[in-house]
Amino acid sequence: MPEFRQNRATKNWVIVATERARRPHDFLVHEEMATLPEFDPKCPFCPGNEDMTPPEIYRIVCDSKWSVRVVPNKFSALVPDAELRREMKFQFFRKVAGYGFHYVIIETPIHNLTIATMSEEQVCDIFKTYLKLYKDLMSNPNINVAIIFRNNGKKAGTSLEHPHSQLIASPIVPTHIRHLLEEATRYYDDHGSCVFCDMISIEEYVMERVVYRDDDFLVIEPFASISPFETWILPRKHNACFGNISEEEACRTAKVVRLVLKQLYDKLNNPDYNYVIHSSPFKDANEEFYHWYIQILPRLTIPAGFELGSGIYITTALPEETAKFLKIN
Amino acid sequence: MPEFRQNRATKNWVIVATERARRPHDFLVHEEMATLPEFDPKCPFCPGNEDMTPPEIYRIVCDSKWSVRVVPNKFSALVPDAELRREMKFQFFRKVAGYGFHYVIIETPIHNLTIATMSEEQVCDIFKTYLKLYKDLMSNPNINVAIIFRNNGKKAGTSLEHPHSQLIASPIVPTHIRHLLEEATRYYDDHGSCVFCDMISIEEYVMERVVYRDDDFLVIEPFASISPFETWILPRKHNACFGNISEEEACRTAKVVRLVLKQLYDKLNNPDYNYVIHSSPFKDANEEFYHWYIQILPRLTIPAGFELGSGIYITTALPEETAKFLKIN
Repeated sequence: MPEFRQNRATKNWVIVATERARRPHDFLVHEEMATLPEFDPKCPFCPGNEDMTPPEIYRIVCDSKWSVRVVPNKFSALVPDAELRREMKFQFFRKVAGYGFHYVIIETPIHNLTIATMSEEQVCDIFKTYLKLYKDLMSNPNINVAIIFRNNGKKAGTSLEHPHSQLIASPIVPTHIRHLLEEATRYYDDHGSCVFCDMISIEEYVMERVVYRDDDFLVIEPFASISPFETWILPRKHNACFGNISEEEACRTAKVVRLVLKQLYDKLNNPDYNYVIHSSPFKDANEEFYHWYIQILPRLTIPAGFELGSGIYITTALPEETAKFLKIN
Repeated sequence: MPEFRQNRATKNWVIVATERARRPHDFLVHEEMATLPEFDPKCPFCPGNEDMTPPEIYRIVCDSKWSVRVVPNKFSALVPDAELRREMKFQFFRKVAGYGFHYVIIETPIHNLTIATMSEEQVCDIFKTYLKLYKDLMSNPNINVAIIFRNNGKKAGTSLEHPHSQLIASPIVPTHIRHLLEEATRYYDDHGSCVFCDMISIEEYVMERVVYRDDDFLVIEPFASISPFETWILPRKHNACFGNISEEEACRTAKVVRLVLKQLYDKLNNPDYNYVIHSSPFKDANEEFYHWYIQILPRLTIPAGFELGSGIYITTALPEETAKFLKIN
């Protein structure tokens, strides 16, 4: 029997479509992995081509070479030289100048790696960079929210092969995030606790959807996963905002992210995926009701008209089964 | 300069990314159109193979042959024989049995057509079928919402080539739709008018994003289009619910939908797309604040990590330009 399930944190319903259910191994990617060179002379992110990117904002150096570089996106979605200006046309159409920041984090000098195949130290450098950028943006009074994300593979919307992630910082708090905060506040009102903290303790008690756990993190396939192998990395320590963590905590996060992505890489044959660091807007950084976490979404299925019309995702895998399949011992 | 724009009806923000803007003709699909046969002996939706589908629910007959057939989806996301049962596990995980209906509307006996290449009469039959199913479901006290949608092409999530659309009817009103109703109610509170009715009159006054208009419909590229060539077909007559319209109005809707899809087909070389009929839940069918409409979303770009994290879509085309490009005289 199919069932509706609700994610208590996002309040989104999904349909677990058992009638069309597929087993975890049915999601194995059968495309051959592209064999890329370690260095591509035409790639703007490869060493030696530093002048092909906009001027560098930050770098981490190791053995007198760069390990991670941050540059503005050449085709920025938001730009720092826009005026902060709201406008209402015909008393109906609301627009705001596209002020903000759009960074590319070039994750390694080596063209053909991905997080799953990088060293722990390298991924640590990436997450330390995320944190540094995030903290800097928090001191900008015109910026209210920052989203860090990674698009891995064509189905996940990437256009450049060289390993990179992105950060977009915006003055506007998206409606979507406001809804999430409202739902979390309501849960806090009703229960006096953070919905994410409760999710961690209940998922760990039940142990049906746990992929990995250690002293700092619980990794689960959410009860109401929106698509097969959706994975959440939840830090145990309550904290609304990613920018509040320490450098050491960033490194510990990096290790778990690498471990989980390596498992996905090995078990599903390098699936395309997005990950995103969900975090509170800056002004809510110390709230009791919200909790930062990382969502990994392999792109194994295509959301279609029903998702567009209803916001309800139909998933064809049971999170209890994908968790078992993915389990890291 | 990039800009944020807000859709006043959905309240969603988008970023119009002028730095990476592409001209309308850059979105032309270059893949060769598959040449399909008129009849495929293995296709479960082709005439003669009626016993390959679950038992038929409805058909329209023309010249003693069927013109449109409705059957339950073989892999139904929701099923009518589920008990209506809510459950809460560990006082945290909420689930509801997957009660509901999931129909496939087989749109024509001919295997290789699409709405753009069908006759007006054929598309009328499809929309009359939608309406008939919708009205029947409205009399079911356990169903609260019905979504009619069409997935055209692989990028839009279809798996069967034979022209078809789908209907999913659910007891649960999705959170997403509840948010839309709340925003529309708030607009009505503030302005004493339906936000969609206002959008129609203001868009027609401005005439910058109008693709087509006649006595009954206004077709626009929304001011805050979530992706290139998003198109809304708005009926002029205020009506919250698709199920309230007459058979004659359904036929007029069919003609406009066909006209717009034919234009997209001709101008962009048969792009993959989804369309969805947005309508109020049944209990709000006579509300002043909501308005049914059809959203067409060509799948020309891939939403990625930023969209996942923020709910803000980055679009690389100006709706004013795509409207000009698509204009139907």
